[in-house]
Amino acid sequence: MVAVAILAAGRGTRMKSSLPKVLHPLGGRSIVEQVLHSLHSISPTRCLVIVGYQADQVKASLAKVDNIAIPFEFVEQTEQLGTGHAIQQVMPYLKNFTDDLLVLNGDVPLLRPETLQQLLQTHKEHQNAATILTAQLPNPQGYGRVFCDESNIVQQIVEDRDCSTGQKQNRRINAGVYCFRWSDLADVLPRLQPNNNQKEYYLTDTVNFLDPVMAVDVEDYQEILGINDRQQLATAFSILQERVKSKWMAAGVTLIDPASITIDDTVQIQPDVIIEPQTHLRGQTVIQSGCRIGPGSLVENSHLDENVSVLYSVITDSKVAANTRIGPYAHLRGHATVGTGCKIGNFVELKNSQLGDRTNVAHLSYLGDATLGTQVNIGAGTITANYDGVQKHPTKIGDRSKTGANSVLVAPLTIGNDVNIAAGSAVTEDTPDDCLVIGRARQVVKPGWRLKRRNQGEKE
Amino acid sequence: MVAVAILAAGRGTRMKSSLPKVLHPLGGRSIVEQVLHSLHSISPTRCLVIVGYQADQVKASLAKVDNIAIPFEFVEQTEQLGTGHAIQQVMPYLKNFTDDLLVLNGDVPLLRPETLQQLLQTHKEHQNAATILTAQLPNPQGYGRVFCDESNIVQQIVEDRDCSTGQKQNRRINAGVYCFRWSDLADVLPRLQPNNNQKEYYLTDTVNFLDPVMAVDVEDYQEILGINDRQQLATAFSILQERVKSKWMAAGVTLIDPASITIDDTVQIQPDVIIEPQTHLRGQTVIQSGCRIGPGSLVENSHLDENVSVLYSVITDSKVAANTRIGPYAHLRGHATVGTGCKIGNFVELKNSQLGDRTNVAHLSYLGDATLGTQVNIGAGTITANYDGVQKHPTKIGDRSKTGANSVLVAPLTIGNDVNIAAGSAVTEDTPDDCLVIGRARQVVKPGWRLKRRNQGEKE
Amino acid sequence: MVAVAILAAGRGTRMKSSLPKVLHPLGGRSIVEQVLHSLHSISPTRCLVIVGYQADQVKASLAKVDNIAIPFEFVEQTEQLGTGHAIQQVMPYLKNFTDDLLVLNGDVPLLRPETLQQLLQTHKEHQNAATILTAQLPNPQGYGRVFCDESNIVQQIVEDRDCSTGQKQNRRINAGVYCFRWSDLADVLPRLQPNNNQKEYYLTDTVNFLDPVMAVDVEDYQEILGINDRQQLATAFSILQERVKSKWMAAGVTLIDPASITIDDTVQIQPDVIIEPQTHLRGQTVIQSGCRIGPGSLVENSHLDENVSVLYSVITDSKVAANTRIGPYAHLRGHATVGTGCKIGNFVELKNSQLGDRTNVAHLSYLGDATLGTQVNIGAGTITANYDGVQKHPTKIGDRSKTGANSVLVAPLTIGNDVNIAAGSAVTEDTPDDCLVIGRARQVVKPGWRLKRRNQGEKE
Repeated sequence: MVAVAILAAGRGTRMKSSLPKVLHPLGGRSIVEQVLHSLHSISPTRCLVIVGYQADQVKASLAKVDNIAIPFEFVEQTEQLGTGHAIQQVMPYLKNFTDDLLVLNGDVPLLRPETLQQLLQTHKEHQNAATILTAQLPNPQGYGRVFCDESNIVQQIVEDRDCSTGQKQNRRINAGVYCFRWSDLADVLPRLQPNNNQKEYYLTDTVNFLDPVMAVDVEDYQEILGINDRQQLATAFSILQERVKSKWMAAGVTLIDPASITIDDTVQIQPDVIIEPQTHLRGQTVIQSGCRIGPGSLVENSHLDENVSVLYSVITDSKVAANTRIGPYAHLRGHATVGTGCKIGNFVELKNSQLGDRTNVAHLSYLGDATLGTQVNIGAGTITANYDGVQKHPTKIGDRSKTGANSVLVAPLTIGNDVNIAAGSAVTEDTPDDCLVIGRARQVVKPGWRLKRRNQGEKE
Repeated sequence: MVAVAILAAGRGTRMKSSLPKVLHPLGGRSIVEQVLHSLHSISPTRCLVIVGYQADQVKASLAKVDNIAIPFEFVEQTEQLGTGHAIQQVMPYLKNFTDDLLVLNGDVPLLRPETLQQLLQTHKEHQNAATILTAQLPNPQGYGRVFCDESNIVQQIVEDRDCSTGQKQNRRINAGVYCFRWSDLADVLPRLQPNNNQKEYYLTDTVNFLDPVMAVDVEDYQEILGINDRQQLATAFSILQERVKSKWMAAGVTLIDPASITIDDTVQIQPDVIIEPQTHLRGQTVIQSGCRIGPGSLVENSHLDENVSVLYSVITDSKVAANTRIGPYAHLRGHATVGTGCKIGNFVELKNSQLGDRTNVAHLSYLGDATLGTQVNIGAGTITANYDGVQKHPTKIGDRSKTGANSVLVAPLTIGNDVNIAAGSAVTEDTPDDCLVIGRARQVVKPGWRLKRRNQGEKE
Repeated sequence: MVAVAILAAGRGTRMKSSLPKVLHPLGGRSIVEQVLHSLHSISPTRCLVIVGYQADQVKASLAKVDNIAIPFEFVEQTEQLGTGHAIQQVMPYLKNFTDDLLVLNGDVPLLRPETLQQLLQTHKEHQNAATILTAQLPNPQGYGRVFCDESNIVQQIVEDRDCSTGQKQNRRINAGVYCFRWSDLADVLPRLQPNNNQKEYYLTDTVNFLDPVMAVDVEDYQEILGINDRQQLATAFSILQERVKSKWMAAGVTLIDPASITIDDTVQIQPDVIIEPQTHLRGQTVIQSGCRIGPGSLVENSHLDENVSVLYSVITDSKVAANTRIGPYAHLRGHATVGTGCKIGNFVELKNSQLGDRTNVAHLSYLGDATLGTQVNIGAGTITANYDGVQKHPTKIGDRSKTGANSVLVAPLTIGNDVNIAAGSAVTEDTPDDCLVIGRARQVVKPGWRLKRRNQGEKE
């Protein structure tokens, strides 16, 4: 029954941002959400997010997130007096708490759940007072070095600036992630002193009062990357993406030029999907087997059934049934649903529309708030006039009906089955089944017109 | 007169695919097609593709490929009992064959023709019984090590698991590619025994019975990469792409951000072409000097004459003459041909249409099955209604004619030379030369209309 | 008061180009322009560009560049007889010049201004006769090695082919960039002899006659990369881009997948802008705080105010006010200006048009030479017929007016305030305020039509 404290009170000056550092987006989540997300498999009893800089903004942002399964509370640290001071603020919240406290950083979002579990497990197994996460860095410069005996019992933690030349050779550094036996920590927290240049209370100093303190090395040192500037944000994004993409490749998904592709970790992809370059899959998206997506496509919060192909298109909040081809340059949005075996072609926008099976909208059309039957053929340039400047109206088109090129359907409108609408028609009234609808003027030819008449100002 | 056997019977479990491993696409070809393609310069007398897992699918797939100049036959290996067993199946096919057999793997697609030629040449020159391809790997773990004397005569091949600590230091590994004097191999193939954990017949074991066996190092160890999973597929794609792109850069083609560009090795590009980022050139495409393609464009099976510019567009199966500008967001397909000095602008689709020189289709148009003369100007929103729901019909437009905005041309239709079509017209009948065609209603103004009338349900 | 000579007379055979090497584009500038650009902070009194191969083309190209603040002159080197010979051509131009000459290469575009300043400063401080730029290369093969004493006084420069095995260990190479006390150099230039295989006059040889000659190491050896082929051109582009992108990340700009993004160094970006993958910012572009650009967008010579979002769109030579959303698949060009809080949706082109605040053009429209008031709603498929085949005409639309779907506005045209245009109308005459405009035929229904009538040839 572990409790978690997340240090999220810092400003992050080097981000050069009006947004608190921990709220910067990192893939489909903010940085601090990523940290919360990594706690799923641990199921902490309590999760205390310590906020300070722009606390209201951090609270408001996390309050809006609805897919964090972990209950969390906010702890305010009104002054920024160091990590030890931050954890001191937690004391009133854990008065009768008798188990372990895991301390994470809100700006260190790459720790894998496996790493946290190993830290907790070691802590429990060895009945440590504290267990700290360490990493072997290729370049440990600037980090506090952790010196252990052969059983990983911490002997000493020395700040970089205080290291002797010999000590600097130690590449094992303090990752700033701790598991404490809470009762022990609560005893020693009041004893911290700000005896340092920054006049801050350092959580690290508590290990001097605790015994035994053990260190656990992280498997991949990249996990402990903290985000302090936009370059590190980009690096973290790249590492997270590599994990997600490796997972899907191992599961049987072909990524062509994986480096150019981004996939939120909320996306589900079945085997034998091919993702072409420069494609981005986001949010609650599901891609079923046999789909081919891209190049140059964005699919967000959408469901693509089997064997759908998408080329240079944007699909958001929509559902596409099997064997349908989309693009290039199509745009589905606003809960569009498309049947099986449809073709949605170039320069077509579907908004909040439902299309039956084997219905085609091949070119230059806008269908908004429309319901189409099966085997409908929407002619090039057909547009639903669904908005009268005040409100939106629906359009219904029956099975096997066909709209002519450049026709306009003025909603509210119901077109029957087996209806043909002549090219260039404006359709304003409902029609029965099986008819031809014409709403256009007859063609007139004025011979010998060209420059002579134009010069007189006659408009074409 | 070399014969070739290609091992293509494996399933490739780690691909997690319903498709046999060797059929996975790798650039413009399947993996096994890439292997066949690397044999062009060798011109083998016979090429035996050994199939097993989903043999019918592999056969059907290769049967459809029409640009493999090498004649090949299929050999079935109904049980998967190892590489030695696979080559045993070849014996009935090479009964009277007296020359050399080159053994390749259907999932090792990066071997360069130069490497194969060197292997064959060494084999011939030294009159070896067998010559095996070896590689010096930075990390040889898991591979069988090849031990040679100073003349590259193989002394021993030791599986990784059987290596002593000292032997493990040898980074020279067996690439699984062999050239055999067929008569010698045919003699020893029956002597293979499945004396191993897998109970398989290993082709490697034949080298124990042959003399002399020589090793040849591959120049670049990346050539021997085998594809067992999607990550390796992505790596192989990247290596092949690097080769193609290096070739074109050396030939005088500017690639801006080469990593983001993909070029099939079937594409031809002249010097002084500039390829912008995120551009993909595929199939039988030819790009002539002075073209600038991209960013964000796809050109497939198309021919672009000199100085064509393409911006954010998709061009397939089409031909574009010199000095024409295309895009952004244009789509040419279905054997469109565009003359010199044309402008094909945004949101324009050309399908199976022929455009004369200096003809412009600048905005929001669909031309299908249309033939346009020279210096035609197609107004924004012009659409050819080429499909009546049953069949497609042609449209012809004479030289110097001009269609008004949002006009629709109902096919079959012939428009003369020097014709002006008024904006918003539906044109249904053929027209003579030099006339104005109007097919629209007169404008009516209803004053003071807005909210009052709308509320009565009058449609705009 | 330094003078500068830039060696730009070479052909660059390995570029395989009809364009002189120094004119190849490298980001927003040609290679030689990049060199000129690096001189800004030095403010040379004279800048002599030595041209030879296709001198006229080089001159013409540089003459067209209007943003090089440095005055420059051309010096012709009619024969290509080496770097020493090139600088000899400068002598008539610097007859009474008494200060220092900085010699740069027109194909070495990555030197940072800081590097040049350090070279000049060292030269002045130590009163050197010559100061040469050197670099410590990981692989110095092929380069002349520079041997110095402990005070960086050059003892010897030895060509790679003349180096002893011991000398080859020296990784300090001659970068070919020099600062000379001009009076000293002018004295010794006539003494150069073409005593080498190439029969060329080498500028390097002058250091044998000058004293003292000092060497200054460049901080990052990548700065001295010369461009001789397209691969090096791509590498240089990548290095320059890394500099630009690092600068903006440090300044508070989020780049998602920085490797896929390109940013000209003429672009200005405010903090808290998010640039999505595959986005390209070019020319004199300014992006204000809170904007989100991309994926897949190109913004060139345009100004985006705060909180503008751009998705899969192309914006050139345009201005967009705050809080406006653009795309996907929109195209702004030709000095379009868009007000605050507008929505420019898919398949919309704005050319030389002005839109007031809170005006929407959401789908499939072309507005050319149009002026729209505030809160206008342009219906899907609305097109301004601004071109009569001879000239362009303007369209004006008053505040709060609304065009119906698929309407066409035949310019010249003025629509009043609060006007509604019915869907499918062709509007040819000016309208007053507050009216409904209809220009379309009444709808006719022909029952039971479908196959029967179509077979008789009646057109839909």
